[in-house]
Amino acid sequence: MSFRHTLKDRVQFADTDMAGIVHFSNFFRYMERVEHDFFRSLGMSIWDGNNLEVAAEARVGWPRVHASCDYKAPLRFEEEFEMELLVEDIRARTLRYRVRFWKSDGTLAAEGSLVAACVQKDPASGRMKAVSIPDRVREKLSTAPPESLAPPKDHA
Amino acid sequence: MSFRHTLKDRVQFADTDMAGIVHFSNFFRYMERVEHDFFRSLGMSIWDGNNLEVAAEARVGWPRVHASCDYKAPLRFEEEFEMELLVEDIRARTLRYRVRFWKSDGTLAAEGSLVAACVQKDPASGRMKAVSIPDRVREKLSTAPPESLAPPKDHA
Amino acid sequence: MSFRHTLKDRVQFADTDMAGIVHFSNFFRYMERVEHDFFRSLGMSIWDGNNLEVAAEARVGWPRVHASCDYKAPLRFEEEFEMELLVEDIRARTLRYRVRFWKSDGTLAAEGSLVAACVQKDPASGRMKAVSIPDRVREKLSTAPPESLAPPKDHA
Amino acid sequence: MSFRHTLKDRVQFADTDMAGIVHFSNFFRYMERVEHDFFRSLGMSIWDGNNLEVAAEARVGWPRVHASCDYKAPLRFEEEFEMELLVEDIRARTLRYRVRFWKSDGTLAAEGSLVAACVQKDPASGRMKAVSIPDRVREKLSTAPPESLAPPKDHA
Repeated sequence: MSFRHTLKDRVQFADTDMAGIVHFSNFFRYMERVEHDFFRSLGMSIWDGNNLEVAAEARVGWPRVHASCDYKAPLRFEEEFEMELLVEDIRARTLRYRVRFWKSDGTLAAEGSLVAACVQKDPASGRMKAVSIPDRVREKLSTAPPESLAPPKDHA
Repeated sequence: MSFRHTLKDRVQFADTDMAGIVHFSNFFRYMERVEHDFFRSLGMSIWDGNNLEVAAEARVGWPRVHASCDYKAPLRFEEEFEMELLVEDIRARTLRYRVRFWKSDGTLAAEGSLVAACVQKDPASGRMKAVSIPDRVREKLSTAPPESLAPPKDHA
Repeated sequence: MSFRHTLKDRVQFADTDMAGIVHFSNFFRYMERVEHDFFRSLGMSIWDGNNLEVAAEARVGWPRVHASCDYKAPLRFEEEFEMELLVEDIRARTLRYRVRFWKSDGTLAAEGSLVAACVQKDPASGRMKAVSIPDRVREKLSTAPPESLAPPKDHA
Repeated sequence: MSFRHTLKDRVQFADTDMAGIVHFSNFFRYMERVEHDFFRSLGMSIWDGNNLEVAAEARVGWPRVHASCDYKAPLRFEEEFEMELLVEDIRARTLRYRVRFWKSDGTLAAEGSLVAACVQKDPASGRMKAVSIPDRVREKLSTAPPESLAPPKDHA
């Protein structure tokens, strides 16, 4: 059972904009990157089509119902940063993550959150509907302790 | 003085992901699109370098300090949608926008918010620092009335 | 039967990079944008799932087998430009387009080409295989006359 | 002196499109990624602002004058692949790279090329103009031998 995962990355040129910093929308792509890496670190894929042991009719998906980010300090081209993902809340049908972006000097660049709903395609209508998080996923996750979710301070 | 702006757009193929819907990060790019169109509709550019009457030393920029989005219904390839921007709050140094995404059948697809800080480059340090919103911008904006900011209902 | 289509657009902030110009990869997204608008202008969608009169088993897709672009002059934030698509070649299983990017002063910003293959999912293997372009598409297209494909000159 | 560089990467979800494969435009972003990693592997940055030993007035930039890609096999979500960059040609003012995308089973997924011009900002006009590649860059590069540039065969 895990509630925390970190991933280092480096700012790519195409992630910057003409203000010389990472475009704010790309932090959401970065958040997804650490989320998916978290799932892989637990021996599964966020995309059930890649989980060969899961029958086609049991596959679930994880569309976002909420995403937010607070920006503290810009990230720049070629800068290395670390993403820290915390499982903030596990509900019947949704997962909430907190993601922090740390600069290499220990400064907090940004803090975001993602809420993903567990959905399944309804065979009749073809529409997605919210379903309970499968045990095979739930048993690998735990909620981060409250102190780890307190407002972060710069490491420096 | 304006507090509302709308813009129609159409989902591009590159905006979708393998789940067949617009990737959640692209809603933030869409929000910026209507924000910048709003500025143009008021006779100015969000990028002061494009506002020829503004002296180089008076230029300001608008980095985001917060962005969020609540997703209600997916947008799909080639779908037409309308963005509705509302000026939610005007403070000394920040602007807060609400942006709604309406499907053509009147369904609310998503609602987001953006907070942009007004910044200027400090000549000495070269760093960005928050400054008061210039009158030339402030005088063109007003805050949306509270009833327009109430939770939206589908038009249908 | 059509061999030419134009579309005006404006550079978005997120399309720029820290060099202050449109990132070169985005010209390929722009090319696809005019290609898909071309199909819509002919009363069809590039995505057969959106063409309701086409039976599921008759649907084709158009993955790219080649894409290229020659860059002549940069495009900048908020700049308006026009894309001009020409059908360069229609073969049994592929379409080749030429796309020109014109600045509003008549300067050629870039010229690119796209080759798309017509494919269908093989029911047995689930893999995509090249197939003949359906008549329903072919009958709407013609090849641009050679003189229109000659090296373009700035309009100015 | 180096003429070859490789980099492994993994397909991110946001890189895919509704056809379930990496959007063709993203191969150009991947090419740039290995190019910039190549420069870092040689102890320098593609962005002269990050090369502290280079005086501001000696800084050069590398806009693309040509980019192309031939697509052989799709890349899919979470797939690991390897990029192989080769220096194809070193001219007075331009560099040409060849970039191959290898699947982990040794299949060639795509092969592209990039031509970057060496430019400098003209102090008078503020415009970019092509200049000779500085010796500090040139002395670290060599041209790949012809046999390495021959049409690649799948490794398998």
